Formats: sequence, C-alpha cells, structure tokens
Amino acid sequence: MEIERKWLADGKALPFRPESFPHTDIVQNYLSFSPTLRIRMLDGGKHCILTMKSASGADGLEREEYEIPITKEQYLRLLPKTEGRSIEKTRYRIPDGDGVLELDIFRGELSGLVLLEREFATREEALSYVPPAWAGREVTREKTYRNAFLAQLSDLSKALPS
Amino acid sequence: MEIERKWLADGKALPFRPESFPHTDIVQNYLSFSPTLRIRMLDGGKHCILTMKSASGADGLEREEYEIPITKEQYLRLLPKTEGRSIEKTRYRIPDGDGVLELDIFRGELSGLVLLEREFATREEALSYVPPAWAGREVTREKTYRNAFLAQLSDLSKALPS
Repeated sequence: MEIERKWLADGKALPFRPESFPHTDIVQNYLSFSPTLRIRMLDGGKHCILTMKSASGADGLEREEYEIPITKEQYLRLLPKTEGRSIEKTRYRIPDGDGVLELDIFRGELSGLVLLEREFATREEALSYVPPAWAGREVTREKTYRNAFLAQLSDLSKALPS
Repeated sequence: MEIERKWLADGKALPFRPESFPHTDIVQNYLSFSPTLRIRMLDGGKHCILTMKSASGADGLEREEYEIPITKEQYLRLLPKTEGRSIEKTRYRIPDGDGVLELDIFRGELSGLVLLEREFATREEALSYVPPAWAGREVTREKTYRNAFLAQLSDLSKALPS
C-alpha cells in the first residue's frame, strides 16, 4: 500500500540547485488509465518498468501498486498500445529526515509544472508531516495533478502555472 | 513468488465427476504476452481480474505474479487491446492434502485439453510432491501448455490430445 502526499512547487524559486541531488530522467505512458497500467523508461532505456495500480481509497492517500522490470524491447513493444500523451520529467531525490522528497520537474508539453511528492510508512506519519517552506499548495486530493490525468488532459492550462 | 507444477490429464478417464467440486468459469485474454498481462473474467463477469507476471526462472517453477480486481466495465474496455485467442475453461478445485489441485477443462477451440496444476509453498514441497495416479505426463517445463502460449498457438493440434 502506497501512502503519499503531493504539493505544487515553483521551479524558479527553489532554494537549492536540483541538479545537486541524484536524479533520473523518466518517460512514461499509459496502456490504460482505469485501471492504471503504466510503462516507464528511465534514463533513456537503462531500466524499464511496468506498473499496475489499483483504485485509490476515498481520501486519495492510499492505493496498491505493483511493478515488474521489463526489457527495453518489451517497453517498445507495449508503447504502441498506450493512450494519451507521453509524460516526460526529471525526478530529483532529496533526502528528508528518514524519507525522501521526490521533486518532479516536467519537460516537453508539461514544461513549467513542478510537483513534490513524499511517501510515508503510515497514515499517521503522512498526516502529521510538515512540508518544507518552499512547497506550494497541497494537491494530494486533486486528480488534475495525477500523472495519469496529465497524460489525458486536453487543456494543459488547467495544470500549468500561469 | 508462485511455485507450481503442471500435468496433462485425460478428461474422459477421470476417476471422479469434476462437477462435484467447486468450480469457476474462466475467460481470459492477453494484453501482452511478454511481459504477461492478462485479463480474466470469472463466472460471466461476477469478478474480473488484471494480472501481471514477471519472466519465469530458468526451471519454469517460479515467477512473480500480481493481481488486482477490476470492474467488468474496465475488463470490457481492455478487451479490444488484447492479442491472440480467448482462453475459455472451467477450473475445478480439488482438495489435496494441505493444498488444492486445480483441474482446468478447456472449452471452445481448446476443447479436449485438460490440465492439472498444483501450487506449493516451497520448492522442496514442489519437488517431493507425488501427483495423483490419474495425472498424465508432467508438462511444468513445456511452454506449449502455458495459457499465454495456447492463446498464441496457430497449430492447435500441437496442444490437443490426438
């Protein structure tokens, strides 16, 4: 069970250089949005992953998620079956107490969008967590900022900062 | 991790009436054969399941398998993306010591084929297991009798009893 919270961030006002943290280039596409079936290529094909997610709980905090590694060849064979746009982003991993903040800086059509996510071991931890001062509005419950939704969104101005 | 063995069986020479055991009608189709991404409809749509399997280990005994329940609506939306033929069968669950024998009697194009499977908790258990006298040839390592292979097989005489 995955328990996470999510915030917007302002890519131009980060109080650090994201490049100083470990990062991964991600391209992801969806075989299905309901249920979520996602293929992901990391760092240009060094690793590829197939992920399946169950429906979310009512409060948006929890969902089951399973993943298996696939080969780049398998990834490329599944790609033509995907729907919607490619999501392209770089994910920066920022140590944060006993966890990690994942900062996603989007590229391509979604350039300008920056999302901050944190996973928690328990719901209690999730609910008592205080985000860093540079985190913007919390969007954990807003489906607009789910990657699967961003991949389907026709009017991108709904997700991009103005 | 799933550890299982598989045998052929002769549907006309079973020493019991399969209908006397709990059974489920299964229709399954594949979104992808490599990796295995399967959708399954049970008992005409009472339950639907999406399953993802990793590549097998070298000896064919073990593979990772994850499943999530999906709605019949989701099942029907995924169906047009599947490849190969539908696999249709009735699965009979026969108690066997501290486990269960799964007897799959195929219908439709694969009518005549009967497969017997048993899952084990450990490799040791799997290797020391003695199948019932009515089990035929063991086919654990024969990919012809994998359902995903049966769904792709163009010459069905390779799988059906003569």
